[in-house]
Amino acid sequence: MSIQQKLDAIIQKNNSLVCVGLDPLLEKIPQHIQSQENPQFEFNKAIIDATHDLVCTYKPNSAFYEARGEQGIRELKLTCDYIHQTYPGIITILDAKRADIGSTNAGYVTFAYDYLGVDAITLHPYLGREAIQPFLDRKDKIAIILCKTSNSGSDEFQNQLVEGKPLYERVAEKVAGEWNQNGNCMLVVGATYPEELAKVRKTAGDMSFLVPGIGAQGGDVEKTVKAGLNSSNAGIVINSSRGIIFASDKEDFATRAREESQKLQNEINRYR
Amino acid sequence: MSIQQKLDAIIQKNNSLVCVGLDPLLEKIPQHIQSQENPQFEFNKAIIDATHDLVCTYKPNSAFYEARGEQGIRELKLTCDYIHQTYPGIITILDAKRADIGSTNAGYVTFAYDYLGVDAITLHPYLGREAIQPFLDRKDKIAIILCKTSNSGSDEFQNQLVEGKPLYERVAEKVAGEWNQNGNCMLVVGATYPEELAKVRKTAGDMSFLVPGIGAQGGDVEKTVKAGLNSSNAGIVINSSRGIIFASDKEDFATRAREESQKLQNEINRYR
Repeated sequence: MSIQQKLDAIIQKNNSLVCVGLDPLLEKIPQHIQSQENPQFEFNKAIIDATHDLVCTYKPNSAFYEARGEQGIRELKLTCDYIHQTYPGIITILDAKRADIGSTNAGYVTFAYDYLGVDAITLHPYLGREAIQPFLDRKDKIAIILCKTSNSGSDEFQNQLVEGKPLYERVAEKVAGEWNQNGNCMLVVGATYPEELAKVRKTAGDMSFLVPGIGAQGGDVEKTVKAGLNSSNAGIVINSSRGIIFASDKEDFATRAREESQKLQNEINRYR
Repeated sequence: MSIQQKLDAIIQKNNSLVCVGLDPLLEKIPQHIQSQENPQFEFNKAIIDATHDLVCTYKPNSAFYEARGEQGIRELKLTCDYIHQTYPGIITILDAKRADIGSTNAGYVTFAYDYLGVDAITLHPYLGREAIQPFLDRKDKIAIILCKTSNSGSDEFQNQLVEGKPLYERVAEKVAGEWNQNGNCMLVVGATYPEELAKVRKTAGDMSFLVPGIGAQGGDVEKTVKAGLNSSNAGIVINSSRGIIFASDKEDFATRAREESQKLQNEINRYR
Protein backbone atom coordinates (compact mmCIF):
# COMPACT_ATOMS: atom_id res chain seq x y z
CA MET A 1 0.00 0.00 0.00
CA SER A 2 1.48 3.38 -1.01
CA ILE A 3 1.36 6.30 1.39
CA GLN A 4 -1.29 8.01 -0.77
CA GLN A 5 -3.36 4.80 -0.61
CA LYS A 6 -2.97 4.78 3.17
CA LEU A 7 -4.40 8.32 3.27
CA ASP A 8 -7.25 7.40 0.92
CA ALA A 9 -8.04 4.31 3.00
CA ILE A 10 -8.44 6.16 6.30
CA ILE A 11 -10.48 8.92 4.63
CA GLN A 12 -12.82 6.25 3.36
CA LYS A 13 -12.87 4.14 6.54
CA ASN A 14 -13.69 7.07 8.85
CA ASN A 15 -15.63 8.97 6.16
CA SER A 16 -13.67 12.00 7.25
CA LEU A 17 -11.48 14.76 5.82
CA VAL A 18 -10.80 16.10 9.32
CA CYS A 19 -7.27 16.70 10.57
CA VAL A 20 -6.96 17.50 14.26
CA GLY A 21 -4.05 19.80 15.05
CA LEU A 22 -2.34 18.60 18.22
CA ASP A 23 -1.03 21.97 19.41
CA PRO A 24 -1.09 21.61 23.20
CA LEU A 25 -0.01 25.04 24.35
CA LEU A 26 0.79 24.26 27.97
CA GLU A 27 -1.03 27.26 29.46
CA LYS A 28 -4.26 26.25 27.74
CA ILE A 29 -4.28 22.61 28.87
CA PRO A 30 -6.86 21.91 31.64
CA GLN A 31 -5.41 22.46 35.11
CA HIS A 32 -5.79 18.86 36.28
CA ILE A 33 -3.58 17.67 33.39
CA GLN A 34 -0.96 20.42 33.66
CA SER A 35 0.25 18.90 36.92
CA GLN A 36 0.90 15.43 35.42
CA GLU A 37 4.35 14.16 34.47
CA ASN A 38 3.83 14.41 30.70
CA PRO A 39 1.03 16.97 30.40
CA GLN A 40 1.19 17.52 26.63
CA PHE A 41 1.17 13.80 25.97
CA GLU A 42 -1.64 13.06 28.45
CA PHE A 43 -3.71 15.85 26.94
CA ASN A 44 -3.09 14.58 23.40
CA LYS A 45 -3.80 10.99 24.38
CA ALA A 46 -7.23 11.91 25.72
CA ILE A 47 -8.00 13.94 22.58
CA ILE A 48 -6.83 11.10 20.33
CA ASP A 49 -8.84 8.45 22.16
CA ALA A 50 -11.93 10.64 21.91
CA THR A 51 -11.62 11.47 18.21
CA HIS A 52 -9.74 8.66 16.42
CA ASP A 53 -12.77 7.34 14.52
CA LEU A 54 -13.73 10.80 13.25
CA VAL A 55 -10.44 11.93 11.68
CA CYS A 56 -8.10 10.96 8.87
CA THR A 57 -4.97 12.66 10.20
CA TYR A 58 -3.39 14.13 13.32
CA LYS A 59 -1.02 17.05 12.95
CA PRO A 60 1.21 17.96 15.90
CA ASN A 61 2.95 21.30 15.31
CA SER A 62 6.56 21.00 16.41
CA ALA A 63 6.75 24.56 17.78
CA PHE A 64 4.47 23.80 20.74
CA TYR A 65 6.74 20.96 21.84
CA GLU A 66 10.10 22.59 21.09
CA ALA A 67 9.07 25.47 23.33
CA ARG A 68 9.55 23.04 26.22
CA GLY A 69 12.97 21.81 25.11
CA GLU A 70 13.92 18.17 25.51
CA GLN A 71 10.84 17.46 27.66
CA GLY A 72 8.59 18.70 24.85
CA ILE A 73 10.43 16.58 22.27
CA ARG A 74 9.91 13.56 24.54
CA GLU A 75 6.17 14.24 24.74
CA LEU A 76 5.97 14.77 20.98
CA LYS A 77 7.53 11.34 20.52
CA LEU A 78 5.20 9.77 23.10
CA THR A 79 2.30 11.28 21.17
CA CYS A 80 3.47 9.99 17.78
CA ASP A 81 4.28 6.55 19.20
CA TYR A 82 0.84 6.36 20.80
CA ILE A 83 -0.98 7.11 17.54
CA HIS A 84 1.15 4.70 15.53
CA GLN A 85 0.71 1.86 18.02
CA THR A 86 -2.94 2.39 18.92
CA TYR A 87 -4.48 3.69 15.71
CA PRO A 88 -2.03 2.64 12.97
CA GLY A 89 -4.33 3.49 10.06
CA ILE A 90 -4.31 7.21 10.84
CA ILE A 91 -1.86 9.46 8.97
CA THR A 92 0.45 11.55 11.17
CA ILE A 93 1.75 14.89 9.93
CA LEU A 94 4.61 16.67 11.66
CA ASP A 95 3.88 20.34 11.06
CA ALA A 96 7.46 21.53 11.30
CA LYS A 97 7.85 23.79 8.24
CA ARG A 98 11.44 22.75 7.69
CA ALA A 99 13.83 22.96 4.73
CA ASP A 100 17.59 23.26 4.72
CA ILE A 101 20.18 22.60 2.03
CA GLY A 102 20.57 19.02 0.79
CA SER A 103 22.66 16.96 3.18
CA THR A 104 21.56 18.90 6.26
CA ASN A 105 17.99 17.81 5.62
CA ALA A 106 19.07 14.28 6.46
CA GLY A 107 18.91 15.33 10.11
CA TYR A 108 15.31 16.47 9.77
CA VAL A 109 14.43 13.33 7.77
CA THR A 110 15.81 11.24 10.63
CA PHE A 111 13.95 13.30 13.25
CA ALA A 112 10.59 13.14 11.48
CA TYR A 113 10.58 9.74 9.79
CA ASP A 114 12.84 7.60 11.96
CA TYR A 115 12.78 9.07 15.47
CA LEU A 116 9.13 10.19 15.49
CA GLY A 117 8.06 7.84 12.72
CA VAL A 118 5.46 10.23 11.27
CA ASP A 119 3.97 9.76 7.81
CA ALA A 120 4.43 13.32 6.58
CA ILE A 121 6.16 16.63 7.21
CA THR A 122 5.44 20.21 6.10
CA LEU A 123 8.21 22.01 4.16
CA HIS A 124 9.11 25.48 2.88
CA PRO A 125 9.63 25.69 -0.91
CA TYR A 126 12.07 28.65 -0.92
CA LEU A 127 15.28 26.60 -1.36
CA GLY A 128 13.93 24.66 -4.32
CA ARG A 129 13.51 20.98 -5.17
CA GLU A 130 17.20 20.16 -5.25
CA ALA A 131 17.49 21.13 -1.59
CA ILE A 132 14.60 19.07 -0.30
CA GLN A 133 15.30 16.00 -2.41
CA PRO A 134 16.08 13.94 0.76
CA PHE A 135 12.41 14.34 1.73
CA LEU A 136 11.11 13.64 -1.79
CA ASP A 137 13.24 10.50 -2.02
CA ARG A 138 11.30 8.91 0.82
CA LYS A 139 8.58 7.25 -1.26
CA ASP A 140 6.99 5.84 1.87
CA LYS A 141 6.37 9.33 3.31
CA ILE A 142 4.56 12.50 2.23
CA ALA A 143 6.30 15.84 1.64
CA ILE A 144 3.77 18.63 2.17
CA ILE A 145 5.00 21.85 0.57
CA LEU A 146 3.78 25.29 1.66
CA CYS A 147 2.00 26.88 -1.29
CA LYS A 148 -0.54 29.55 -0.20
CA THR A 149 -0.47 29.87 3.56
CA SER A 150 -3.44 30.88 5.69
CA ASN A 151 -1.94 33.93 7.42
CA SER A 152 -3.16 37.44 6.59
CA GLY A 153 0.25 38.57 5.33
CA SER A 154 0.92 35.60 3.05
CA ASP A 155 0.48 37.77 -0.05
CA GLU A 156 3.77 39.63 0.58
CA PHE A 157 5.77 37.16 -1.51
CA GLN A 158 3.30 34.39 -2.36
CA ASN A 159 1.10 36.65 -4.48
CA GLN A 160 3.94 38.44 -6.27
CA LEU A 161 3.64 37.88 -10.01
CA VAL A 162 6.25 35.67 -11.62
CA GLU A 163 5.83 35.87 -15.40
CA GLY A 164 2.18 36.74 -15.03
CA LYS A 165 1.26 34.21 -12.36
CA PRO A 166 1.49 34.53 -8.56
CA LEU A 167 4.41 32.78 -6.93
CA TYR A 168 2.10 30.35 -5.07
CA GLU A 169 0.79 29.09 -8.42
CA ARG A 170 4.37 28.66 -9.67
CA VAL A 171 5.07 26.61 -6.55
CA ALA A 172 1.94 24.53 -7.21
CA GLU A 173 3.01 23.93 -10.83
CA LYS A 174 6.51 22.83 -9.83
CA VAL A 175 5.38 20.57 -7.01
CA ALA A 176 2.60 18.95 -9.06
CA GLY A 177 5.11 18.43 -11.88
CA GLU A 178 8.83 17.80 -11.32
CA TRP A 179 8.70 17.47 -7.54
CA ASN A 180 6.07 14.76 -7.47
CA GLN A 181 7.83 12.02 -9.38
CA ASN A 182 7.30 9.61 -6.50
CA GLY A 183 3.64 10.58 -6.13
CA ASN A 184 4.33 11.58 -2.52
CA CYS A 185 3.79 15.36 -2.50
CA MET A 186 0.96 17.42 -1.07
CA LEU A 187 0.45 21.19 -0.86
CA VAL A 188 -0.56 23.50 1.98
CA VAL A 189 -3.32 25.90 0.91
CA GLY A 190 -5.10 28.04 3.50
CA ALA A 191 -8.87 27.87 3.97
CA THR A 192 -8.76 31.63 4.40
CA TYR A 193 -8.17 31.98 0.63
CA PRO A 194 -10.89 29.95 -1.16
CA GLU A 195 -10.32 31.66 -4.52
CA GLU A 196 -6.64 30.82 -4.43
CA LEU A 197 -7.54 27.30 -3.31
CA ALA A 198 -9.70 26.88 -6.41
CA LYS A 199 -6.83 28.09 -8.61
CA VAL A 200 -4.36 25.71 -6.99
CA ARG A 201 -6.84 22.85 -7.48
CA LYS A 202 -6.90 23.68 -11.20
CA THR A 203 -3.11 23.80 -11.37
CA ALA A 204 -2.30 20.74 -9.28
CA GLY A 205 -4.77 18.20 -10.66
CA ASP A 206 -5.92 15.62 -8.14
CA MET A 207 -3.04 16.10 -5.67
CA SER A 208 -4.06 16.14 -2.00
CA PHE A 209 -3.95 19.41 -0.03
CA LEU A 210 -3.53 20.12 3.65
CA VAL A 211 -5.91 22.99 4.39
CA PRO A 212 -5.44 24.90 7.65
CA GLY A 213 -7.27 28.07 8.61
CA ILE A 214 -10.75 26.81 9.52
CA GLY A 215 -12.18 28.03 12.82
CA ALA A 216 -10.14 30.51 14.83
CA GLN A 217 -8.46 31.83 11.68
CA GLY A 218 -11.78 32.48 9.96
CA GLY A 219 -11.84 30.04 7.04
CA ASP A 220 -15.30 28.99 5.81
CA VAL A 221 -15.99 25.25 5.54
CA GLU A 222 -18.48 25.40 2.64
CA LYS A 223 -16.26 27.59 0.47
CA THR A 224 -13.22 25.50 1.32
CA VAL A 225 -14.83 22.19 0.43
CA LYS A 226 -16.35 23.49 -2.79
CA ALA A 227 -13.06 25.06 -3.90
CA GLY A 228 -10.79 22.24 -2.78
CA LEU A 229 -12.33 18.85 -3.63
CA ASN A 230 -10.62 16.86 -6.36
CA SER A 231 -12.25 14.62 -8.96
CA SER A 232 -12.57 11.79 -6.41
CA ASN A 233 -14.63 14.00 -4.11
CA ALA A 234 -11.72 14.07 -1.65
CA GLY A 235 -8.11 15.37 -1.91
CA ILE A 236 -8.36 17.84 0.98
CA VAL A 237 -7.45 17.33 4.59
CA ILE A 238 -9.01 20.14 6.62
CA ASN A 239 -7.23 21.01 9.83
CA SER A 240 -8.71 22.46 12.96
CA SER A 241 -6.59 22.85 16.09
CA ARG A 242 -7.80 25.26 18.77
CA GLY A 243 -11.46 24.94 17.77
CA ILE A 244 -11.34 21.25 18.65
CA ILE A 245 -8.67 20.69 21.30
CA PHE A 246 -9.51 23.76 23.37
CA ALA A 247 -13.31 23.55 23.00
CA SER A 248 -13.34 23.25 26.79
CA ASP A 249 -10.65 23.95 29.38
CA LYS A 250 -12.39 21.76 31.96
CA GLU A 251 -12.57 18.02 32.67
CA ASP A 252 -14.91 17.52 29.70
CA PHE A 253 -12.30 18.72 27.19
CA ALA A 254 -12.04 15.35 25.40
CA THR A 255 -15.81 14.92 25.10
CA ARG A 256 -16.09 18.45 23.78
CA ALA A 257 -13.24 17.78 21.34
CA ARG A 258 -15.18 14.79 20.03
CA GLU A 259 -18.31 16.90 19.62
CA GLU A 260 -16.42 19.58 17.70
CA SER A 261 -14.67 17.00 15.51
CA GLN A 262 -18.01 15.42 14.69
CA LYS A 263 -19.51 18.81 13.93
CA LEU A 264 -16.66 19.62 11.55
CA GLN A 265 -16.83 16.16 9.97
CA ASN A 266 -20.57 16.58 9.37
CA GLU A 267 -20.22 20.09 8.05
CA ILE A 268 -17.51 19.05 5.59
CA ASN A 269 -19.47 16.00 4.45
CA ARG A 270 -22.60 18.12 3.93
CA TYR A 271 -20.80 19.93 1.09
CA ARG A 272 -19.05 16.94 -0.48
CA MET B 1 24.56 47.61 24.04
CA SER B 2 22.30 46.61 21.13
CA ILE B 3 22.59 43.17 19.57
CA GLN B 4 24.20 44.68 16.45
CA GLN B 5 26.74 46.43 18.69
CA LYS B 6 27.43 43.10 20.39
CA LEU B 7 28.20 41.58 16.99
CA ASP B 8 30.40 44.53 16.00
CA ALA B 9 32.26 44.34 19.31
CA ILE B 10 33.25 40.69 19.00
CA ILE B 11 34.23 41.16 15.33
CA GLN B 12 36.56 43.93 16.44
CA LYS B 13 37.84 42.18 19.57
CA ASN B 14 38.76 38.95 17.78
CA ASN B 15 39.51 40.70 14.48
CA SER B 16 37.45 37.99 12.86
CA LEU B 17 34.51 37.53 10.51
CA VAL B 18 34.62 33.77 11.01
CA CYS B 19 31.54 31.79 12.01
CA VAL B 20 32.16 28.17 12.96
CA GLY B 21 29.25 25.90 12.13
CA LEU B 22 28.72 23.43 14.97
CA ASP B 23 27.24 20.59 12.94
CA PRO B 24 28.43 17.50 14.82
CA LEU B 25 27.14 14.69 12.64
CA LEU B 26 27.55 11.79 15.06
CA GLU B 27 29.16 9.39 12.58
CA LYS B 28 31.90 11.91 11.82
CA ILE B 29 32.88 12.66 15.41
CA PRO B 30 36.20 11.04 16.47
CA GLN B 31 35.71 7.54 17.85
CA HIS B 32 37.03 8.31 21.34
CA ILE B 33 34.33 10.98 21.77
CA GLN B 34 31.45 9.02 20.27
CA SER B 35 31.48 6.72 23.29
CA GLN B 36 31.06 9.53 25.83
CA GLU B 37 27.77 10.38 27.51
CA ASN B 38 27.14 13.59 25.56
CA PRO B 39 29.26 13.12 22.43
CA GLN B 40 27.96 16.08 20.42
CA PHE B 41 28.43 18.42 23.36
CA GLU B 42 31.90 17.11 24.25
CA PHE B 43 32.95 17.45 20.62
CA ASN B 44 31.58 21.00 20.39
CA LYS B 45 33.16 21.99 23.70
CA ALA B 46 36.61 20.98 22.50
CA ILE B 47 36.11 22.85 19.22
CA ILE B 48 34.84 25.95 21.05
CA ASP B 49 37.71 25.98 23.55
CA ALA B 50 40.18 25.69 20.68
CA THR B 51 38.70 28.43 18.49
CA HIS B 52 36.90 30.99 20.71
CA ASP B 53 39.46 33.78 20.18
CA LEU B 54 39.40 33.38 16.39
CA VAL B 55 35.66 33.65 15.70
CA CYS B 56 32.83 36.13 16.03
CA THR B 57 29.96 33.63 16.00
CA TYR B 58 29.09 29.98 16.48
CA LYS B 59 26.26 28.50 14.48
CA PRO B 60 24.83 25.15 15.56
CA ASN B 61 22.45 23.76 12.93
CA SER B 62 19.41 22.32 14.67
CA ALA B 63 19.00 19.42 12.22
CA PHE B 64 22.11 17.61 13.47
CA TYR B 65 20.76 17.63 17.02
CA GLU B 66 17.11 16.93 16.27
CA ALA B 67 18.23 13.80 14.42
CA ARG B 68 19.00 12.38 17.87
CA GLY B 69 15.67 13.33 19.43
CA GLU B 70 15.52 14.56 23.00
CA GLN B 71 19.14 13.57 23.64
CA GLY B 72 20.27 15.80 20.77
CA ILE B 73 18.18 18.71 22.04
CA ARG B 74 19.82 18.28 25.44
CA GLU B 75 23.29 18.44 23.88
CA LEU B 76 22.32 21.46 21.79
CA LYS B 77 21.30 23.22 25.00
CA LEU B 78 24.50 22.13 26.77
CA THR B 79 26.44 23.58 23.83
CA CYS B 80 24.61 26.91 23.85
CA ASP B 81 24.83 27.20 27.65
CA TYR B 82 28.54 26.50 27.52
CA ILE B 83 29.22 29.25 24.99
CA HIS B 84 27.06 31.78 26.83
CA GLN B 85 28.66 31.05 30.19
CA THR B 86 32.27 30.65 29.09
CA TYR B 87 32.58 33.08 26.19
CA PRO B 88 29.69 35.50 26.64
CA GLY B 89 30.90 38.00 24.03
CA ILE B 90 30.45 35.57 21.16
CA ILE B 91 27.23 35.69 19.13
CA THR B 92 25.30 32.40 18.89
CA ILE B 93 23.16 31.66 15.86
CA LEU B 94 20.63 28.82 15.84
CA ASP B 95 20.52 27.73 12.22
CA ALA B 96 17.01 26.34 12.31
CA LYS B 97 15.42 27.84 9.18
CA ARG B 98 12.05 28.17 10.86
CA ALA B 99 8.92 30.22 10.13
CA ASP B 100 5.31 29.45 10.92
CA ILE B 101 2.20 31.62 11.10
CA GLY B 102 2.11 34.33 13.77
CA SER B 103 1.16 32.91 17.13
CA THR B 104 2.74 29.51 16.47
CA ASN B 105 6.12 31.19 16.11
CA ALA B 106 5.94 31.97 19.82
CA GLY B 107 6.95 28.35 20.41
CA TYR B 108 10.05 28.73 18.26
CA VAL B 109 10.87 32.08 19.87
CA THR B 110 10.72 30.38 23.27
CA PHE B 111 12.86 27.45 22.07
CA ALA B 112 15.57 29.63 20.52
CA TYR B 113 15.67 32.70 22.74
CA ASP B 114 14.52 31.46 26.13
CA TYR B 115 15.32 27.74 26.33
CA LEU B 116 18.57 27.82 24.32
CA GLY B 117 19.22 31.52 24.89
CA VAL B 118 20.84 32.09 21.48
CA ASP B 119 21.34 35.56 20.02
CA ALA B 120 19.96 34.84 16.57
CA ILE B 121 17.94 32.42 14.45
CA THR B 122 17.69 31.80 10.70
CA LEU B 123 14.21 32.13 9.11
CA HIS B 124 12.41 31.44 5.83
CA PRO B 125 10.80 34.51 4.22
CA TYR B 126 7.98 32.69 2.33
CA LEU B 127 5.20 33.48 4.84
CA GLY B 128 5.95 37.20 4.89
CA ARG B 129 6.74 39.76 7.59
CA GLU B 130 3.37 39.58 9.31
CA ALA B 131 3.97 35.91 10.09
CA ILE B 132 7.41 36.28 11.59
CA GLN B 133 6.69 39.43 13.56
CA PRO B 134 7.20 37.55 16.88
CA PHE B 135 10.88 37.17 15.90
CA LEU B 136 11.23 40.76 14.65
CA ASP B 137 9.69 42.07 17.87
CA ARG B 138 12.59 40.72 19.90
CA LYS B 139 14.85 43.76 19.69
CA ASP B 140 17.50 42.02 21.76
CA LYS B 141 17.87 39.23 19.18
CA ILE B 142 18.74 38.97 15.48
CA ALA B 143 16.37 37.58 12.85
CA ILE B 144 18.43 36.23 9.94
CA ILE B 145 16.26 35.86 6.84
CA LEU B 146 17.11 33.48 3.98
CA CYS B 147 17.69 35.58 0.87
CA LYS B 148 19.93 33.82 -1.70
CA THR B 149 20.87 30.40 -0.37
CA SER B 150 24.13 28.59 -1.20
CA ASN B 151 22.66 25.40 -2.69
CA SER B 152 22.97 24.64 -6.40
CA GLY B 153 19.20 24.60 -6.93
CA SER B 154 18.43 27.87 -5.14
CA ASP B 155 17.60 29.58 -8.44
CA GLU B 156 14.36 27.59 -8.85
CA PHE B 157 12.31 30.23 -7.02
CA GLN B 158 14.87 32.70 -5.68
CA ASN B 159 15.97 33.85 -9.15
CA GLN B 160 12.46 34.06 -10.64
CA LEU B 161 11.78 37.60 -11.80
CA VAL B 162 9.25 39.61 -9.82
CA GLU B 163 8.56 42.84 -11.70
CA GLY B 164 11.95 42.73 -13.34
CA LYS B 165 14.00 41.78 -10.30
CA PRO B 166 14.79 38.32 -8.93
CA LEU B 167 12.81 37.23 -5.90
CA TYR B 168 15.92 37.18 -3.69
CA GLU B 169 16.43 40.89 -4.36
CA ARG B 170 12.78 41.56 -3.50
CA VAL B 171 13.35 39.72 -0.24
CA ALA B 172 16.47 41.82 0.41
CA GLU B 173 14.54 45.05 -0.29
CA LYS B 174 11.72 44.10 2.05
CA VAL B 175 13.97 42.94 4.87
CA ALA B 176 16.28 45.95 4.63
CA GLY B 177 13.21 48.21 4.59
CA GLU B 178 9.98 47.38 6.42
CA TRP B 179 11.20 44.30 8.24
CA ASN B 180 14.19 45.98 9.88
CA GLN B 181 12.44 48.62 11.94
CA ASN B 182 14.18 47.38 15.08
CA GLY B 183 17.57 47.22 13.36
CA ASN B 184 17.77 43.53 14.21
CA CYS B 185 17.64 41.82 10.81
CA MET B 186 20.36 40.08 8.83
CA LEU B 187 20.26 38.19 5.53
CA VAL B 188 21.61 34.81 4.44
CA VAL B 189 23.50 35.07 1.14
CA GLY B 190 25.55 32.13 -0.13
CA ALA B 191 29.28 32.45 -0.86
CA THR B 192 28.63 30.26 -3.90
CA TYR B 193 26.97 33.25 -5.60
CA PRO B 194 29.37 36.23 -5.37
CA GLU B 195 27.57 38.22 -8.09
CA GLU B 196 24.27 37.90 -6.29
CA LEU B 197 26.04 38.76 -3.03
CA ALA B 198 27.28 42.02 -4.58
CA LYS B 199 23.74 42.85 -5.74
CA VAL B 200 22.28 42.16 -2.31
CA ARG B 201 24.96 44.35 -0.75
CA LYS B 202 23.83 47.19 -3.03
CA THR B 203 20.18 46.62 -2.15
CA ALA B 204 20.56 46.14 1.60
CA GLY B 205 22.92 48.96 2.51
CA ASP B 206 25.17 48.19 5.47
CA MET B 207 23.06 45.35 6.90
CA SER B 208 25.06 42.35 8.13
CA PHE B 209 24.95 39.08 6.17
CA LEU B 210 25.47 35.50 7.22
CA VAL B 211 27.43 33.90 4.39
CA PRO B 212 27.57 30.09 4.22
CA GLY B 213 29.03 28.06 1.37
CA ILE B 214 32.79 28.47 1.87
CA GLY B 215 34.87 25.29 1.80
CA ALA B 216 33.10 22.01 1.09
CA GLN B 217 30.37 23.82 -0.90
CA GLY B 218 32.92 25.56 -3.13
CA GLY B 219 32.57 29.27 -2.28
CA ASP B 220 35.66 31.42 -2.88
CA VAL B 221 36.89 33.56 0.04
CA GLU B 222 38.39 36.42 -2.00
CA LYS B 223 35.30 36.87 -4.18
CA THR B 224 33.04 36.60 -1.15
CA VAL B 225 34.87 39.21 0.88
CA LYS B 226 35.16 41.65 -2.03
CA ALA B 227 31.48 41.28 -2.91
CA GLY B 228 30.16 41.25 0.62
CA LEU B 229 31.92 43.87 2.77
CA ASN B 230 29.90 46.88 3.81
CA SER B 231 31.08 50.47 4.20
CA SER B 232 32.59 49.68 7.63
CA ASN B 233 34.80 46.98 6.10
CA ALA B 234 32.73 44.34 7.89
CA GLY B 235 29.04 43.33 7.69
CA ILE B 236 29.67 39.72 6.70
CA VAL B 237 29.90 36.68 8.91
CA ILE B 238 31.47 33.86 6.90
CA ASN B 239 30.55 30.36 7.99
CA SER B 240 32.58 27.22 7.64
CA SER B 241 31.39 23.97 9.21
CA ARG B 242 32.87 20.72 7.91
CA GLY B 243 36.12 22.36 6.73
CA ILE B 244 36.88 23.33 10.32
CA ILE B 245 35.20 20.86 12.67
CA PHE B 246 36.05 17.77 10.65
CA ALA B 247 39.56 18.83 9.59
CA SER B 248 40.72 15.72 11.44
CA ASP B 249 38.81 12.68 12.69
CA LYS B 250 41.56 11.81 15.17
CA GLU B 251 42.56 12.99 18.63
CA ASP B 252 44.01 16.19 17.16
CA PHE B 253 40.62 17.36 15.81
CA ALA B 254 40.46 20.45 18.05
CA THR B 255 44.01 21.57 17.22
CA ARG B 256 43.30 21.06 13.54
CA ALA B 257 40.02 23.00 13.90
CA ARG B 258 42.02 25.86 15.39
CA GLU B 259 44.49 25.79 12.50
CA GLU B 260 41.70 25.82 9.92
CA SER B 261 39.88 28.63 11.73
CA GLN B 262 43.06 30.67 11.81
CA LYS B 263 43.69 29.99 8.14
CA LEU B 264 40.19 31.16 7.25
CA GLN B 265 40.49 34.21 9.52
CA ASN B 266 43.77 35.16 7.85
CA GLU B 267 42.47 34.57 4.35
CA ILE B 268 39.40 36.71 5.01
CA ASN B 269 41.45 39.49 6.60
CA ARG B 270 43.89 39.49 3.66
CA TYR B 271 41.07 40.74 1.43
CA ARG B 272 39.50 43.22 3.84
